[in-house]
Amino acid sequence: MPTKNIAPVIVVAPDSFKGSLSAQQVGDAIAAGLRRVWPKADVRVRPLADGGEGTLDALLANGGKRMKLHVRNAAGGPCEAQSGLLPDQTAIIETAEIVGITDAAGMAIPIEARSTLGLGDAIRTHLDQDARRILIALGGSSTNDGGAGLLNALGIRLLDADGKSLPPSPNAFERLAQIDASGLDTRLKGCSLMAMTDVDNPLCGKHGASAVFGPQKGASPKQVEKLDHALSHFADLLENALGKRVRDMPGAGAAGGLGFALHALGATFRPGAEVVAAEAALDEALQGADWMITGEGRSDAQTLHGKTPFVACEHARRLGVPASLLSGGIDVSALPQLNQYFSGCFSPTPGPMTLQTAIAEAGTLLADGAEQLARLFDAARSRDSRP
Amino acid sequence: MPTKNIAPVIVVAPDSFKGSLSAQQVGDAIAAGLRRVWPKADVRVRPLADGGEGTLDALLANGGKRMKLHVRNAAGGPCEAQSGLLPDQTAIIETAEIVGITDAAGMAIPIEARSTLGLGDAIRTHLDQDARRILIALGGSSTNDGGAGLLNALGIRLLDADGKSLPPSPNAFERLAQIDASGLDTRLKGCSLMAMTDVDNPLCGKHGASAVFGPQKGASPKQVEKLDHALSHFADLLENALGKRVRDMPGAGAAGGLGFALHALGATFRPGAEVVAAEAALDEALQGADWMITGEGRSDAQTLHGKTPFVACEHARRLGVPASLLSGGIDVSALPQLNQYFSGCFSPTPGPMTLQTAIAEAGTLLADGAEQLARLFDAARSRDSRP
Repeated sequence: MPTKNIAPVIVVAPDSFKGSLSAQQVGDAIAAGLRRVWPKADVRVRPLADGGEGTLDALLANGGKRMKLHVRNAAGGPCEAQSGLLPDQTAIIETAEIVGITDAAGMAIPIEARSTLGLGDAIRTHLDQDARRILIALGGSSTNDGGAGLLNALGIRLLDADGKSLPPSPNAFERLAQIDASGLDTRLKGCSLMAMTDVDNPLCGKHGASAVFGPQKGASPKQVEKLDHALSHFADLLENALGKRVRDMPGAGAAGGLGFALHALGATFRPGAEVVAAEAALDEALQGADWMITGEGRSDAQTLHGKTPFVACEHARRLGVPASLLSGGIDVSALPQLNQYFSGCFSPTPGPMTLQTAIAEAGTLLADGAEQLARLFDAARSRDSRP
Repeated sequence: MPTKNIAPVIVVAPDSFKGSLSAQQVGDAIAAGLRRVWPKADVRVRPLADGGEGTLDALLANGGKRMKLHVRNAAGGPCEAQSGLLPDQTAIIETAEIVGITDAAGMAIPIEARSTLGLGDAIRTHLDQDARRILIALGGSSTNDGGAGLLNALGIRLLDADGKSLPPSPNAFERLAQIDASGLDTRLKGCSLMAMTDVDNPLCGKHGASAVFGPQKGASPKQVEKLDHALSHFADLLENALGKRVRDMPGAGAAGGLGFALHALGATFRPGAEVVAAEAALDEALQGADWMITGEGRSDAQTLHGKTPFVACEHARRLGVPASLLSGGIDVSALPQLNQYFSGCFSPTPGPMTLQTAIAEAGTLLADGAEQLARLFDAARSRDSRP
């Protein structure tokens, strides 16, 4: 029965296991397990991410360099943030690295005072380095400034009725009388911007940035109302200055309206997992593959809402490659839905154990688990089902 | 990719999950999961056991009736015990049901006073019912009487120097001067006896019943020495009376020397798991099968020492059928050895969880787990690996 001499082609394209292993580490562990069964297998490890935590790591997995940026945090103070630069002059910026909701300095001041100046700083820094393309991951911001900070750092001025400059935060929008876009960094014309987000919300209204995401950033119902009003006023003036209306475009409400500013700058919007899959050349890796394994820390019904393993699975299925899920944990109540996509959903836990042990042993368990799945796969594929 | 129209043949042949589900329940749960993937699959459930707990259940799974016997326990008191009768007049007796080490009455008296009279009672009862064949599972006894009780209940008399009857327990063997086998139940000639045991030990000596198994039945080193001496003396006289020497035959030391008595009666000895596999017609079920799933509560290196899943796996391999292990838990340190036999070793746990939850949900988890393995198997077998 063993067919060790026949080397299969397998794509291993997982997300990270949050709090445990990076996507690269997950992929390497699974690959090690597969190679124990098929020493000559063509195992193609493609670390993925969904535009949130781990996206930079995943995008740098196939080359490129990690950089340290000196920018401003949501409170306007100095902040060091990681970014990446791929060999083709594509820069990668993570919003959460700069104005993240886990950053204490930003969270210490009221939401109305926070701004995305640091995002503009980061873009400028990469323009200085001749970036041709900038990917911006929008997840995890603490801000709700409609991207005013980003635009301000790139040369757009916010002015009061007397023509005096205003800070780019919502608490100044009441006094905002005019926007001067004439100073916008001209280098943006030679650089394409791409926003990574799974969020479709518009800038304002009951599905807007303030109403939907404000509360989780600390805004009270009263603050939400004021913020929504402030963003609407800011949008009126910006759209007027640029001569285009973008506030209702899908994703304008992402990252506290950072999406709105990026739409205003002509950015394209794509789901994070799709961008990473494209950058990782997932489809090329899937050519001629016999099997794909993907996974994440924990899979449930949300997985099918654009999470990394689902996106990977869709790519595999389009190319006729069966995809199995190997995640730290599987919510069994979601199996009926997951079954419509995956050729088997598995956890590497070899029996009852604590989450703590599973996390501590994740690498070993994944290698062992992948090996066992491979052993079954190998036995089964030796048994042709064709009539 | 789905090949639901092509119905595979799958044998499901597990042991029980001790403390959780019977082998039949385990098999039914796995079968239910497989049928979700292949509604028309030919799923052949064959509950197995290793001659210990659950053997009666497994042997009765394919028909036959459960009986209630009125016999004597190891202390000589009245005891109700289950036995079974298959349609072909094969009776099944479990030693542990009658003189079990978990029976308080037997364990309350010293080991030297315990006897296997109840086993003889059980055999006699089944002879009364025209049993043609009696299978005796030897595991789990509290006794160390060399099977003297069994023989005594079947008509063999133990006599002192004055020709007076002695009780069939080791504490009387000092006074034993003669054995009269003339009254042995003649119906035994028309009935074949089969002992189920994985134990190869002889009756006496350092590998004998007293030395190896006495301590776990409560015997001190001094008692062990006396017991060994007593059994040796009993064997001298019995072998003399029957005109054959059987004390060194493999298994004579099983169940406190009950194996010796059964050898003396001409019983055949076979590993329990093999007997159950044969009775369950496992080989017939494996004919033309694409896959076998076996399992047990927990698998480790001991599994390969004649445990049920190993025996099932050996049968499957001989017939060219790949066998996967689906056990409540897998000791990952044993995987290198288990991998030499099984086409994948799996637990149905879908992530970190407590043993308590895993046991409480075992049926559901097994069905889900089997379904996921089937989904992978189905995807893989659609991908022919032949060059």
